Amino acid sequence: MSRFMSARHAALTPYTPGEQPRDMAYTKLNTNESPYPPSPAVAAAAEREAGRLNLYCDPTCAELCRKAAALYGVEPENILPVNGSDEILYFAFTAFGDETHPFAFPDISYGFYPVYADMCHVPAHIIPLRDDFSIDPGDYIGLNENIVIANPNAPTGMALSVSDIESIVRANPDRVVVIDEAYIDFGGVSCVPLIKTYDNLLVTQTFSKSRSLAGARLGFGIACQSLIRDLNTVKYSVNPYNVNRMTQAAGAAAIDDNAYYMENCRRIVDTRANTARALEALGFTVLPSCSNFLFAAHPAIGGGALYRALKARGVLVRHFDKPRIDGFVRITIGTPEQMDILLGEIRAILQEGGSQA
Amino acid sequence: MSRFMSARHAALTPYTPGEQPRDMAYTKLNTNESPYPPSPAVAAAAEREAGRLNLYCDPTCAELCRKAAALYGVEPENILPVNGSDEILYFAFTAFGDETHPFAFPDISYGFYPVYADMCHVPAHIIPLRDDFSIDPGDYIGLNENIVIANPNAPTGMALSVSDIESIVRANPDRVVVIDEAYIDFGGVSCVPLIKTYDNLLVTQTFSKSRSLAGARLGFGIACQSLIRDLNTVKYSVNPYNVNRMTQAAGAAAIDDNAYYMENCRRIVDTRANTARALEALGFTVLPSCSNFLFAAHPAIGGGALYRALKARGVLVRHFDKPRIDGFVRITIGTPEQMDILLGEIRAILQEGGSQA
Repeated sequence: MSRFMSARHAALTPYTPGEQPRDMAYTKLNTNESPYPPSPAVAAAAEREAGRLNLYCDPTCAELCRKAAALYGVEPENILPVNGSDEILYFAFTAFGDETHPFAFPDISYGFYPVYADMCHVPAHIIPLRDDFSIDPGDYIGLNENIVIANPNAPTGMALSVSDIESIVRANPDRVVVIDEAYIDFGGVSCVPLIKTYDNLLVTQTFSKSRSLAGARLGFGIACQSLIRDLNTVKYSVNPYNVNRMTQAAGAAAIDDNAYYMENCRRIVDTRANTARALEALGFTVLPSCSNFLFAAHPAIGGGALYRALKARGVLVRHFDKPRIDGFVRITIGTPEQMDILLGEIRAILQEGGSQA
Repeated sequence: MSRFMSARHAALTPYTPGEQPRDMAYTKLNTNESPYPPSPAVAAAAEREAGRLNLYCDPTCAELCRKAAALYGVEPENILPVNGSDEILYFAFTAFGDETHPFAFPDISYGFYPVYADMCHVPAHIIPLRDDFSIDPGDYIGLNENIVIANPNAPTGMALSVSDIESIVRANPDRVVVIDEAYIDFGGVSCVPLIKTYDNLLVTQTFSKSRSLAGARLGFGIACQSLIRDLNTVKYSVNPYNVNRMTQAAGAAAIDDNAYYMENCRRIVDTRANTARALEALGFTVLPSCSNFLFAAHPAIGGGALYRALKARGVLVRHFDKPRIDGFVRITIGTPEQMDILLGEIRAILQEGGSQA
């Protein structure tokens, strides 16, 4: 921190994105990207826009909102497109949190929530997961605090039902409940339809995972019109042209090609089931995942040691050096071929460990 | 404002971007876009990336930083690429301002500065321009406040010299001076070299205007390494993947094609001189512009009336309904053909006014 930085930020520890080493070509299973490329129509749409970049993008993202509304079964006024779903989460903490309006969230969840709380000077009410790493909805009933829950949760991959979500939203009518559905398309059930009943529900989604657009940066906030209006007040006070011209076009084309992406999600769910079975056969504990990753631990090797051994063998997974979960690694579901490479290297590592013991 | 919005934002009035009406095709001279398309190499670079959008972009923008450093004659550690230069201005207010550390800026300047001050709860110290709309550098000597100055200033187009900027930076050694060089390539002299001498200088630039990338969203912060580190702390606490994959590639390609863009700037400067002469011949007062727009007022018609009359005739310019400048319109410099259309319509409007009088 330089001598110029505001003391407001003295205690701020920024988020650490997943590593992207360039020393060699890795089998990259550490940042939950889709192994499948965007559809040809998406690339073509982005290319069309590349020739007219001298003109500003539409700050209202009108065409994209119209298409996203049809996809989600809501009205365009219920949609706010953003520069990746991290941005809508930041807007939500900014809009609805302050010194006297905390955000509650689980102890084990997306690592950005506590950063946003610090950044926005919003007290964080951290609620432990159960011992089996599930969320107890009862912990969130009548809190009278803003709440953010990833559903499915990360890095566990475990999902709540819509009725559990609804009970939480209904039981906190005077504060905003944010449901972060970044991984919803891999087996969870979206609570987007609830925005028609509850004016305190904000659902966030992203095209990074299920729509193969991590590199384009496109997320959405979905909520009743008055919450979207508040979030737009923040957007137009921070960065009105936040979603660029190519990404708006890519997102619209991705919605037109929805069947392609849903088929990719189905393949990823299949690959996940096969990978989970194979890991369990090797002695791993694997949490029940509704996402495009698995969270797995082995009794014979710690999470950090497994991460390092895999990295040395050219396979990147993610390890979180945090209490309760430091025995685990988070493994993105790639192609079946990538998972075979992963499993082969894990077998070799476990054998080496066995022969050394 | 919904009942959920934090009272922090009760007084917030968001920024209003230039209008983008869709009721007809306008000669669009209202948002300071370049009339020239991006170079073919830029479109090709963006297109190349469109096929691999399933992979996250590099959050460090390493390749782009390397190229931008060479362009600006600094080190990669002195560069922070952002999602349009609005974002770096927001980061600067966030990082360096707080309740006890105001930002000073002119009464007539980029309309986003007071919005950022409100948004970040930073007192705004507003300093009037001289009667001739120039900035008096003496007003900023020894303020002991953060300062943001657009150079050239908007919407006047008038520039300060590097030595005037240096006197301001040197005379406020304990606070940050932000020089917003969005329009520097149209005749001003950049103060980027001063970052090697002054640890309290942040220069912001954008590829929206001189590099025909308004629709791609690419801006830069340029400063000593410790200021860039502070701004990165904010970035990694807000939106680490802020610059998407296509825009990073487009920006790098634009730097490789710098000669094309500098030639476009030269053409715009020529067109500006011709347009200013023609407007003066019609009786306009035209401020001396170093930017890609002109700020002009006519004794026979108010700024609002001229804006409306031009819009009715299919030409969009920008009018600011603010004290001191409500007699003016801001006219973006387009192609010579676009300026001929503008001048033809202005002549017709002035004649109509004359025949009605």
